[in-house]
Amino acid sequence: MLRIDQYTEVFVAYLNDKLAIKEPANLYEPIHYILQLGGKRLRPVLTLMATDIFESDHQKALDAALAVEVFHNFSLVHDDIMDDAPLRRGEETVHEKWDVNTGILSGDAMLIRAYQLFENYEGETFRALAKLFSKTAIEVCEGQQYDVDFETRDDVTIPEYLKMIEYKTAVLVGAALKMGAIVANASAENANRIYEYGRDLGIAFQLQDDYLDAFGDPKTFGKQVGGDIIENKKTFLYLTALERLDEVHSKQLQHLFSINPQDPSEKIETVKQLFIDSGAAEATQQEIEKYTNTALEHLDCLDVKEENKTILKEFAQALMRRKV
Amino acid sequence: MLRIDQYTEVFVAYLNDKLAIKEPANLYEPIHYILQLGGKRLRPVLTLMATDIFESDHQKALDAALAVEVFHNFSLVHDDIMDDAPLRRGEETVHEKWDVNTGILSGDAMLIRAYQLFENYEGETFRALAKLFSKTAIEVCEGQQYDVDFETRDDVTIPEYLKMIEYKTAVLVGAALKMGAIVANASAENANRIYEYGRDLGIAFQLQDDYLDAFGDPKTFGKQVGGDIIENKKTFLYLTALERLDEVHSKQLQHLFSINPQDPSEKIETVKQLFIDSGAAEATQQEIEKYTNTALEHLDCLDVKEENKTILKEFAQALMRRKV
Repeated sequence: MLRIDQYTEVFVAYLNDKLAIKEPANLYEPIHYILQLGGKRLRPVLTLMATDIFESDHQKALDAALAVEVFHNFSLVHDDIMDDAPLRRGEETVHEKWDVNTGILSGDAMLIRAYQLFENYEGETFRALAKLFSKTAIEVCEGQQYDVDFETRDDVTIPEYLKMIEYKTAVLVGAALKMGAIVANASAENANRIYEYGRDLGIAFQLQDDYLDAFGDPKTFGKQVGGDIIENKKTFLYLTALERLDEVHSKQLQHLFSINPQDPSEKIETVKQLFIDSGAAEATQQEIEKYTNTALEHLDCLDVKEENKTILKEFAQALMRRKV
Repeated sequence: MLRIDQYTEVFVAYLNDKLAIKEPANLYEPIHYILQLGGKRLRPVLTLMATDIFESDHQKALDAALAVEVFHNFSLVHDDIMDDAPLRRGEETVHEKWDVNTGILSGDAMLIRAYQLFENYEGETFRALAKLFSKTAIEVCEGQQYDVDFETRDDVTIPEYLKMIEYKTAVLVGAALKMGAIVANASAENANRIYEYGRDLGIAFQLQDDYLDAFGDPKTFGKQVGGDIIENKKTFLYLTALERLDEVHSKQLQHLFSINPQDPSEKIETVKQLFIDSGAAEATQQEIEKYTNTALEHLDCLDVKEENKTILKEFAQALMRRKV
């Protein structure tokens, strides 16, 4: 097994090697651009790690890992159009640098390209990878649709919210790991266990994102603290607070989430105080811990050498401690 | 073998049976909507026909045929956004009836859904279908990009134009037929021959579209006659005329293709006259005949019962005679 930074290095070298601008350049340049913008490369690294955990060779998993990363970036390109986002990783989004049409078409080509990468696997491996990929990709679309729907709904429940983040974010983390297991020819039980580990960790990761968006340290948190509050986003914090507040404060919170003040600092402070006073802040941290622990329990059931589990245990704990 | 209208009936019945609105409804309703809008269903019918031509059962090809039709409609949904088209088959386009974001996301889900339909085939059939599908889908994206690029280029050559329509339109016709051959376990040679028949027929079909757009009978032609001229579209007629006209008339044609008069009727008449006087109109008809004949030659080389070729021969001749 390598260290996480070594897996990242191996993956980025492979990615750069595979990036080539073909004709028509207006289709392939945006793909090249978004893929070399960086990002943490968490998902493809998980694919490589999983292959080694099941005693195969991570080199065999490079194309599956690349498919995961290309798909993830496809979803970013299309989501950024839908959110009208100007920046991604501190640089212009594809539809800003080019235009919306280029973003749509280049995204489409990336989705197809991801499927093509599985063609480097034989027989049942190809089939299993493509099938898992399609199931996951459809769920990501459904998760994105739920997210859009929730913007205009005021009766979103906490289970619905958890399902949304599971589909939009967590299933791809699970699938990234399961693809590594498939490449390594792991048993169906092991493959499903590592999927569940990834899915639950993905949910914890997204809840942590919600939490840090409100309570992160502005010095270390990458994005603007309070961004979700400014955008009136119905996160786990918000939905939990609403459930726990008395009628007066619940009304106050709902009112605050219906306005868009020029200077949002007072709104942010009041909302954060309501998140704390209602117990929603603490409940969110407990939920993060709960999902992280469930993820770790799936690891316990994995039928592999104990030492091979270490990297995934450390990975889960590092995510729970993260400040960015 | 059935008649073409019978294949259409079988396909439409299967399509209607498979259409179900799932949650989230805002993702699946637009998919349902565009798929039941109608259209000629030419591509999926070709898939079913090809399976019978190779002495298998078209019932086995229904999922492959549906994948072709779902993909075709995916490309219409995304292309209509890019072209800002208000109408499709006389009804509102998806992004008009809903919004651009819905069009993007529903389109993405359709592309994935098309891949999922191949999961109903085993082993090597699944692999061959998915591989052909990816290759074709990427080419369709490339063709669309070339089409977009050509709008702002004034040095498009005729070979470039032919490559564009091959990718944007014709390869999917070839692939639809080849998928039927794959389902029927036809030999690689037969599968490639029927692909080439479809591809060349697809090119002839698109050239015919160009021709009818200018010279079709307003009483029978479905769309506005002269639409391409109004939009200054660089079709085969235009590029051929430019190549053949003397400098004065070539400049005149280029000028006409740089303006957008309120009342386009005079522009349309002048351009059509230039298409005729330059010989471009006749050259286009010859080109249509050439591609149709090449398509028919590929049929001659097919190693199947002569009587099974009849339906494809008649199909090619009917397309060449069509007025709509």
